[in-house]
Amino acid sequence: MPPTLLATRGDYEAFVDRYDTFLFDCDGVIWRGNIVIDNVPATLDMLRKRGKRLIFVTNNSATSRRDYVGKFAKLGMQAAVEEIFSSAYATAVYLRDVVGFASDKKAYVIGGSGIRNELEEVGIATVGQDDTAAISLATLGDVEPSADVGAVVFGIDYDISYRKLANAHVNLTQNPDCLFIATNDDRTLPGGKHVYPGTGALLSTLIHSTQRTPLVMGKPNTPMLDCVMQKFHLDPARSCMVGDRLDTDILFGIKGGVSTLCVLTGVADEASVLSPSAPQATYYMSSLGDLFELAQ
Amino acid sequence: MPPTLLATRGDYEAFVDRYDTFLFDCDGVIWRGNIVIDNVPATLDMLRKRGKRLIFVTNNSATSRRDYVGKFAKLGMQAAVEEIFSSAYATAVYLRDVVGFASDKKAYVIGGSGIRNELEEVGIATVGQDDTAAISLATLGDVEPSADVGAVVFGIDYDISYRKLANAHVNLTQNPDCLFIATNDDRTLPGGKHVYPGTGALLSTLIHSTQRTPLVMGKPNTPMLDCVMQKFHLDPARSCMVGDRLDTDILFGIKGGVSTLCVLTGVADEASVLSPSAPQATYYMSSLGDLFELAQ
Repeated sequence: MPPTLLATRGDYEAFVDRYDTFLFDCDGVIWRGNIVIDNVPATLDMLRKRGKRLIFVTNNSATSRRDYVGKFAKLGMQAAVEEIFSSAYATAVYLRDVVGFASDKKAYVIGGSGIRNELEEVGIATVGQDDTAAISLATLGDVEPSADVGAVVFGIDYDISYRKLANAHVNLTQNPDCLFIATNDDRTLPGGKHVYPGTGALLSTLIHSTQRTPLVMGKPNTPMLDCVMQKFHLDPARSCMVGDRLDTDILFGIKGGVSTLCVLTGVADEASVLSPSAPQATYYMSSLGDLFELAQ
Repeated sequence: MPPTLLATRGDYEAFVDRYDTFLFDCDGVIWRGNIVIDNVPATLDMLRKRGKRLIFVTNNSATSRRDYVGKFAKLGMQAAVEEIFSSAYATAVYLRDVVGFASDKKAYVIGGSGIRNELEEVGIATVGQDDTAAISLATLGDVEPSADVGAVVFGIDYDISYRKLANAHVNLTQNPDCLFIATNDDRTLPGGKHVYPGTGALLSTLIHSTQRTPLVMGKPNTPMLDCVMQKFHLDPARSCMVGDRLDTDILFGIKGGVSTLCVLTGVADEASVLSPSAPQATYYMSSLGDLFELAQ
């Protein structure tokens, strides 16, 4: 069935009534860069007043959930830490609750403080952050696997180094039980005027060298949504994922068995939403802010 | 035709007579790590005395040809700079002679001093070596393409940084004429007891982020051999590539249209040499050092 356009007050009422929980991608839906999209704050208030649960889902593993709350505040909106679900937090929850990560094991992290903080908050010790010292072919042989390492956790890392990659490689190839988990696999990363190599690009180093396939938590993969559904005991039939990208957000919702709403304030335009070869959203509308009409 | 075993003095005489030029892989053929393979120095002397041209072909881009001459000397053998053909040198020769690299352009190098030295010796200015300063999402936007950059040249780099990858990415995606050249694409790199991520693994970052395919100079790809053939005006019918790896050395010779000899002092064993599904060498023998018999 092609996506249904939401365009009238009646459409909005029926849509909002049909769901208890709304999952939101942020960039392109709530804000664009550092600019809030018109009427979105009032729309979020209206949804909260109607008793809806709001969950903000981000692939970004570089910042912690607390940092994300700070971003909402800076843009004049309120969000609670519990409403934020990042790929870094999903990784921590997955290791603790699904894997039952052994308390005597450590995670070798290639990634920033966001992911280290989330892992340590759930009681998982991390190593690797100091592996930035110079290395050469002569000293390479000193890089040894460690039986303590139970997982390599990979996220965006602006301090990536050959020493880190070498450490992760030997642990992934020599420690038979070492897990390989990536927060997300976005190919590129928007940063100012250009895009730059994303987590998925950096990650391809280890996929290629180890010939192992990581478990990828973030959109469009399902583990992050599985964690969300489990944590909040959500009913898929009463949940809707709202996003601006068909190949990540909407596909993520479809794979997770929830309804989907594609907004046109980010990457996707109407033609791509209606293309039969694209992931088919349940609904689309010009902007999430249009729902603000219901508050008036 | 299956590979022909060379095992008798008569076989050796006929083999040596048939070629004017021998191209050698080094590790596994001339030496193993830091140990010379028995009778190989005397074999090389014998070939030189018979007026053969010897060329040592290496994928290693981290060391310059002069460093390689030093390694031969340390192991008690002589080799001239002109006899060494590394993937770094091949890259320099390719840019100068085949591309006709513009004198007002620079090469953005991800790689070590070996490749920088080779490029600068043929008159190509290099940039990028200092791009190791810390970077963050907030400062990422400062990384801009530069119209001066005419090529991204990628080799093994123990000082790889996100800033370097970001620079290379924006030049490869924003400068329409920017070439993308890799010295080699070895998946892993032997270093002491373990193997570690090789040039090909690091390179996959940019292949994935830019969706561009680099020209790869080194074995088993043909550009390096094209450079060798052109530089020395070799007759393929009178040239033989000697190596220990079927999927790099022998395939490299086959693709380049020269004869091939696989020795069993490195990676390949007799069963793999004779496997019909492997690249088919022209000849095989237990060790290059066996040819020493001709000197006695």
